[in-house]
Amino acid sequence: MNIRSNPDKTVPAVTTGPLPSSRKIFASPDAAPDIRVPLREIILSEGAGEPNLPVYDTSGPYTDPSVTIDVNAGLARGRKQWVLERGGVEEYQGRQIKPEDNGSVSTDNAARSFAAYHQPLRGLDGHKITQLEFARAGIITKEMIYVAARENLGRKEQLERAEAALADGESFGAEVPAFITPEFVRSEIARGRAIIPCNINHSELEPMIIGRNFLTKINANIGNSAVTSSVEEEVEKMVWAIRWGADTVMDLSTGRNIHTTREWILRNAPVPIGTVPIYQALEKCNGDPVQLTWELYKDTLIEQCEQGVDYFTIHAGVRLQYIHLTASRVTGIVSRGGSIMAKWCLAHHKESFLYTHFDEICDLMRKYDVSFSLGDGLRPGSIADANDRAQFAELETLGELTKIAWDKGCQVMIEGPGHVPMHKIKINMDKQLKECGEAPFYTLGPLTTDIAPGYDHITSGIGAAMIGWFGCAMLCYVTPKEHLGLPDRNDVKVGVITYKIAAHASDLAKGHPAAQLRDDALSRARFDFRWSDQFNLGLDPDTAKNFHDETLPKEAHKVAHFCSMCGPKFCSMKITQDVRDYAATLNDPNSIGMSMSGTAEDGMKQMSAKFKEMGSSVYLDAEKVKESNKALS
Amino acid sequence: MNIRSNPDKTVPAVTTGPLPSSRKIFASPDAAPDIRVPLREIILSEGAGEPNLPVYDTSGPYTDPSVTIDVNAGLARGRKQWVLERGGVEEYQGRQIKPEDNGSVSTDNAARSFAAYHQPLRGLDGHKITQLEFARAGIITKEMIYVAARENLGRKEQLERAEAALADGESFGAEVPAFITPEFVRSEIARGRAIIPCNINHSELEPMIIGRNFLTKINANIGNSAVTSSVEEEVEKMVWAIRWGADTVMDLSTGRNIHTTREWILRNAPVPIGTVPIYQALEKCNGDPVQLTWELYKDTLIEQCEQGVDYFTIHAGVRLQYIHLTASRVTGIVSRGGSIMAKWCLAHHKESFLYTHFDEICDLMRKYDVSFSLGDGLRPGSIADANDRAQFAELETLGELTKIAWDKGCQVMIEGPGHVPMHKIKINMDKQLKECGEAPFYTLGPLTTDIAPGYDHITSGIGAAMIGWFGCAMLCYVTPKEHLGLPDRNDVKVGVITYKIAAHASDLAKGHPAAQLRDDALSRARFDFRWSDQFNLGLDPDTAKNFHDETLPKEAHKVAHFCSMCGPKFCSMKITQDVRDYAATLNDPNSIGMSMSGTAEDGMKQMSAKFKEMGSSVYLDAEKVKESNKALS
Repeated sequence: MNIRSNPDKTVPAVTTGPLPSSRKIFASPDAAPDIRVPLREIILSEGAGEPNLPVYDTSGPYTDPSVTIDVNAGLARGRKQWVLERGGVEEYQGRQIKPEDNGSVSTDNAARSFAAYHQPLRGLDGHKITQLEFARAGIITKEMIYVAARENLGRKEQLERAEAALADGESFGAEVPAFITPEFVRSEIARGRAIIPCNINHSELEPMIIGRNFLTKINANIGNSAVTSSVEEEVEKMVWAIRWGADTVMDLSTGRNIHTTREWILRNAPVPIGTVPIYQALEKCNGDPVQLTWELYKDTLIEQCEQGVDYFTIHAGVRLQYIHLTASRVTGIVSRGGSIMAKWCLAHHKESFLYTHFDEICDLMRKYDVSFSLGDGLRPGSIADANDRAQFAELETLGELTKIAWDKGCQVMIEGPGHVPMHKIKINMDKQLKECGEAPFYTLGPLTTDIAPGYDHITSGIGAAMIGWFGCAMLCYVTPKEHLGLPDRNDVKVGVITYKIAAHASDLAKGHPAAQLRDDALSRARFDFRWSDQFNLGLDPDTAKNFHDETLPKEAHKVAHFCSMCGPKFCSMKITQDVRDYAATLNDPNSIGMSMSGTAEDGMKQMSAKFKEMGSSVYLDAEKVKESNKALS
Repeated sequence: MNIRSNPDKTVPAVTTGPLPSSRKIFASPDAAPDIRVPLREIILSEGAGEPNLPVYDTSGPYTDPSVTIDVNAGLARGRKQWVLERGGVEEYQGRQIKPEDNGSVSTDNAARSFAAYHQPLRGLDGHKITQLEFARAGIITKEMIYVAARENLGRKEQLERAEAALADGESFGAEVPAFITPEFVRSEIARGRAIIPCNINHSELEPMIIGRNFLTKINANIGNSAVTSSVEEEVEKMVWAIRWGADTVMDLSTGRNIHTTREWILRNAPVPIGTVPIYQALEKCNGDPVQLTWELYKDTLIEQCEQGVDYFTIHAGVRLQYIHLTASRVTGIVSRGGSIMAKWCLAHHKESFLYTHFDEICDLMRKYDVSFSLGDGLRPGSIADANDRAQFAELETLGELTKIAWDKGCQVMIEGPGHVPMHKIKINMDKQLKECGEAPFYTLGPLTTDIAPGYDHITSGIGAAMIGWFGCAMLCYVTPKEHLGLPDRNDVKVGVITYKIAAHASDLAKGHPAAQLRDDALSRARFDFRWSDQFNLGLDPDTAKNFHDETLPKEAHKVAHFCSMCGPKFCSMKITQDVRDYAATLNDPNSIGMSMSGTAEDGMKQMSAKFKEMGSSVYLDAEKVKESNKALS
């Protein structure tokens, strides 16, 4: 590249190593034994009396001790072989990197550029390139086989152990099969109801699928802004976000070093990376939307297609005729991309070039299988503006553009709000499914109230759980810093965990066949006082353990049959074994009749005797425990 | 009292002073001008161009600079006069405090006892005592007048300024009137659909109302356990919880000093205090449920009635015949009270004495107007156990007991779960309304998944917001320490703020006429870049300000028309004034027709010119801001 490398600048240091009591395991699909699909196995304690629990693993090689991580070199590029095998692509001399790609950053301020350069691939005319094209042709790709195995996460074995009743739920029309087959994946992609964001130039990718008949996914946004943060921070933020469960990551960088930052992220990213190309295009004309041109924008798309970006947010639905509909809003236009285009349209008194050149955008993105994330540039920025005409007019246009993109062979998902009170959320989901032919919906929250800056991961987590239940395929996280500042490392983690909760609550409510397996495993551990298992089965074992240890720090308490809430003197959990012994003596455990059978009478008399003799002698003394903790502090 | 006072022990230090940019104001109801109903007025910045915003205020005199707080003496006991005015009560020599009331604590370990002793009041036979009895007789009490004014929070003035469309929502049968009148309060209480928990001996109380046709309320649990914490901490926890918005507080103390701790809390509590009397009764028999007797329990009820506890959780629905229904559960019986009674029933092979003596319990509680909170001792402790037969069998019995309590003249609310996946939440609400004749529902969460220990304020905040929307009248908070340990000061705040979010999101979705006023005020502040107003209108101004200042610390940035998310170079908010100017030139601002009128054409041409001349010169330079922050760090 022609930005001088600054060897002084540090190589990003990233977080590696498995999560507590977890190990990386691999599934090998029958359909392609050479493919290794990663899962995380949570290892339970010896006394657990049940098998370890396999869970979905977004963390990539960073949690695999057998892999040596060199951020300087990037991850292994195994997927390139899959693309070449399929044919229909050519390797070529890519576009030259220009100074403006990095905001014309001065040499002194230039970030250390990524060492390796990989020649880009692009599709040849007359050949199938995108997953949608292969799916329609009845061809099952390795990506499809991969995601099918990934979605099943050992489901079969687990379900055989579990009870039948797991799949109860209200799916609102979604149909998650008991087992995911490659053919099911293909059929869902073929009809546009799911996408696998996978640029043919993102060879480091571990493919994943987004669609309402699969596990609900979450996205984490990162990105340095003009005001703060650096390349090193962004790479670690990406690694950190996927460690805790982000399924995709969007790089929303602005300002300087934007190309270099993205290169570092992509070469080290096992998850799909999304961007909003208009942000970089704007930097190339000094932040003045009026100076934007189609040529400049198109050149930016090519730049990012060649780098390997997996999906583009494109605000092509912000049409000239809709802009005045935002005039009476409380918060006007809050989407950056939307307002950039609105300003361009007004300044030139023209229809958006994203709308008028949409065909060309499709042709370009198809060549690299970059998926569309049709942006909601007119999304509501406040409760007052939710579900207004501006928002829905744009959504209708996104539906029209979806069909065009599909005709061109492109994969598509649709972005959604924003700020929406609970009673208006389902209307959004239903209208999106109708207008956009069931293309996957991808929403930001929505935030269910405006009154809690500093807690918008929670105001939005509520809306995210609900819209996920109603059928939203991917939930874009919101961090505690929303509306206030850029998220730091801890904010990213809190945002990701909050959205894993929302996504999982959605899967439970939809009746996803395997979702409840983890809840049940954790609840059994909780009930058996297997404290370590309870921590390790949770979304954030470290935090759970730390919280527990604040009041009961000693290792001995990890096996104690009590906790600090009730203390050892009396614990409600202890009663249940007594109840079980008692119930076992009844004729009919399910009877709730007033009168008991003779056997029941006997059983209860026996239990009475047993309890009387037990008294309270079996319980530890609370004061002793208190002393033992004092001793430590 | 006959526990020797230890003058060495410290007097609790509590948090006082108003919240940022807030002052205490008082409404004087026309119906009783001598009554002063506190509100918090959030003072907006000079440039706001709109009036200050009055909000509900649970914090009591602690946020009123004109009041001198002496925790040693307790709060003013003004409400006693109201009770005496009504007559039908007698002052009498109360029950003597016994060593076992404080768990027979040794003199060395005894907490400093509360200095003042107040003779208790009790109702005389043949007189009306409870709010329900007065309401049925068509009598409007001062408590009713007080809560009516409190619920309106200046609504009338605000609504006259606001647009009509505010009240849109889906109420599922709730009917919150545009304005709350004392007569409406009376009628809701008369039909059992709302309660004012107000023991005649809690003279420090600022009355509040719980019912689905009023603002959704939240409860915070505090209480020392055998394992940790002290009297001082508990009093401050109460003051701290109401500072952030807890409407009621439950003292769940166990172990030693239980009577003394409660006395300190009650004498300093402006909010209703609830307890679970069986906890103390259990301490009186050394934690052995088998030794519990009706006499011992009744004596404990009298002790707490005389102290002024406003509502009792009583698990009278845990019947002998239901216990075996929990045998096949994943987490059995998780309610402490429920498991205590289950063990007693099994040990003695008898029906619960709470059930068999329910009439006597009603007669006793009526004399002091202590409200029932009928406990859900068989609530599910995991997703797997939600909505099972054990849970619903108990709920049906609670419905039967509700009617008995009403016949006795007692106020009643019903406790609910627990752990419930989203799709099973509404079933709980609907069944409770049906079985319990619309008596107020009071739920713990519910938690919508089991897999996030350390984040159960969020897993439950999702369920709480939903069930509040469906009609739940009060939401019992869950802190991040749930399942792991006792909440500390910060956990209490996070729990309270999370539940204020859930309660407010519920009110918005129900279409509460005044709920959106605060969202709109905050969103206008956000859109106008009135940073301080945005912080101060939020639920936690301190946290919002700190988060903002992490990236833009300088005071100058409090008026900056940009934030760190996008930086100053381009901000989406700035576009909207342009859009408004433009829209103002259109004939029909609501038209979205393809063709524009002549005026529209002109308008757009003018805007084009304006924007071209503006270019990007109006924007600050991002790098300068970056430097200015570097300078500070």
